[in-house]
Amino acid sequence: MPLVRVFYAVKANPAPEILSMLVELGSCFDTASLQEIEMVLAAGATPDRISFGNTIKKERDIARAYELGVRLYAFDSACELSKIARSAPGSKVFCRILVDCVSADWPLSKKFGCAPAMALELLTDAAGRGLDAYGISFHVGSQQTDPEQWDLAIGQAAAIFRDLGERGVAARMVNLGGGLPARYQDEVAPIAAYALAISQAMTRHFGNQLPEMIIEPGRGLVGDAGVLEAEVVLIAEKNFGDEVRWVYLDVGKFNGLAETMDEAIKYRVKTPRDGVETGRVILAGPTCDSVDVLYEKAGYELPHALEVGDKIRFLSAGAYTTTYATTGFNGFPPIQAYYI
Amino acid sequence: MPLVRVFYAVKANPAPEILSMLVELGSCFDTASLQEIEMVLAAGATPDRISFGNTIKKERDIARAYELGVRLYAFDSACELSKIARSAPGSKVFCRILVDCVSADWPLSKKFGCAPAMALELLTDAAGRGLDAYGISFHVGSQQTDPEQWDLAIGQAAAIFRDLGERGVAARMVNLGGGLPARYQDEVAPIAAYALAISQAMTRHFGNQLPEMIIEPGRGLVGDAGVLEAEVVLIAEKNFGDEVRWVYLDVGKFNGLAETMDEAIKYRVKTPRDGVETGRVILAGPTCDSVDVLYEKAGYELPHALEVGDKIRFLSAGAYTTTYATTGFNGFPPIQAYYI
Repeated sequence: MPLVRVFYAVKANPAPEILSMLVELGSCFDTASLQEIEMVLAAGATPDRISFGNTIKKERDIARAYELGVRLYAFDSACELSKIARSAPGSKVFCRILVDCVSADWPLSKKFGCAPAMALELLTDAAGRGLDAYGISFHVGSQQTDPEQWDLAIGQAAAIFRDLGERGVAARMVNLGGGLPARYQDEVAPIAAYALAISQAMTRHFGNQLPEMIIEPGRGLVGDAGVLEAEVVLIAEKNFGDEVRWVYLDVGKFNGLAETMDEAIKYRVKTPRDGVETGRVILAGPTCDSVDVLYEKAGYELPHALEVGDKIRFLSAGAYTTTYATTGFNGFPPIQAYYI
Repeated sequence: MPLVRVFYAVKANPAPEILSMLVELGSCFDTASLQEIEMVLAAGATPDRISFGNTIKKERDIARAYELGVRLYAFDSACELSKIARSAPGSKVFCRILVDCVSADWPLSKKFGCAPAMALELLTDAAGRGLDAYGISFHVGSQQTDPEQWDLAIGQAAAIFRDLGERGVAARMVNLGGGLPARYQDEVAPIAAYALAISQAMTRHFGNQLPEMIIEPGRGLVGDAGVLEAEVVLIAEKNFGDEVRWVYLDVGKFNGLAETMDEAIKYRVKTPRDGVETGRVILAGPTCDSVDVLYEKAGYELPHALEVGDKIRFLSAGAYTTTYATTGFNGFPPIQAYYI
């Protein structure tokens, strides 16, 4: 995607090692909080490479970001727009619109975005308040497995651009959001397939007047780069003759694998005994909380030869693991992370 | 419950201030990990007041607990029993059985416990290995709103005791588990109603040969003692004329209110503008994660006069809040806690 600027979604993994490397590689950064902005600045980025991409911000955090030099802000409501107009005057703003996202493994609800009709009015209002009505953003859902899902939202953005133009407001940026997948149990289309589908959709809806483009990969950039190692703590059956074994690990929903919620993200699992006969297992974490079950319905199988003390690995665990862990539920410490 | 010894479930809130107070009051402690054992010892408890109540333990943690003087261990599988027999010889052990728990707001799955028939064999085996086959435990589900739910499990325990007696194994303790409720949106029965129902069930199934009894309240002890304060960050509508407002707070599922998962725990909410006209709201947290929505279907209403910057309070937030928070997802720090 040669015309698209990358804003790394810091929330996926804010490790200083990752931020520093991305600063060197020329990336920009999508941040969710003042704390993330400070982390990115500490990693060496200049503030012009930072987007304050959360649509839910305290006004004092907007004011502080503005002091730090940040000039790019997301919003999706009149209330948030007023805060930005007051505390970050003259900044570039983009309005997030609601899109229906299907076929995403971690879909986004209606929590973010407003109706396109409202976005039109809010961006018009932004221009009237001395802000730079920069453009539109949307999100097609995290771990989006269908590259065609961008088309609808891009079409809606183009329609808003036309309506804004008729009002004399020159929007010029489309923020394509996140959604690029990591490689979990199912194969995913290569990044080139996403690039092609998005480029075609942009051309279809904008013709030869392509606006600036931003994309905000998080999982898609760092997900496949991480491995989570767990120790088998217990292998148990609930009654004599049970066909399904319970395998309990020292990591679970509360210390690293929160995205197994509702069995949404299905990690690939490697064991030191792969290659021999396998049998059905239920995988669970170590806490005394019964919601700390990773996979019960997903049909995972592990080797019959698996033993207590074995180390197993969850692949593609680089995103939404370290910071999703709790501060110490059940006394278990947060997971240790190493960057190599 | 004069005959019942209280083992506080440390996981509900492991604050040193709470542990120290309970040590002074004479409480015993149900712990989930070696770290929790160390916290309880640091608060001044002697090891004979500690139960290592997690059925999922690394053998090296059992060995270390034994070194520290802990002599009471839970198990629910042959694998765990072997670890305890090897690394905590001669200790008291209790076997957790599976019970069907209905009418609990935070029900427990089949993650813990084994079939009663298996418990009988495992306790027999425990006695044969030089362990003290102390008794049976079960859990009727956290935030259990029906005091009668203990009856079935107590009956099963009594049956296992009789069968063990015929084999010459003298089990003599029933661990009634947790389940005592805090006061969320719905009224709950007073503690006396639970005491009466449990006492009657014990007498019904054990007659005048009452065994020792243990209970493990966590939420029921500390839940109502806490208040979680949140700031209103944003009030928004998704389109013109929407009847439901979105109210975004600076706490959410990832920093304190994890038990709103699936809207399971419905906290009472107080605002500084209570008493005026209210309207339907969807309550959501501050992160860029769309699962960070607290209540969408539960029908919460808040005053129309509510404004950004207002502080609202979640009552009965003393349990499963501080340690359920993440280490800093989206850059937001864990919640600050004050004990008065």
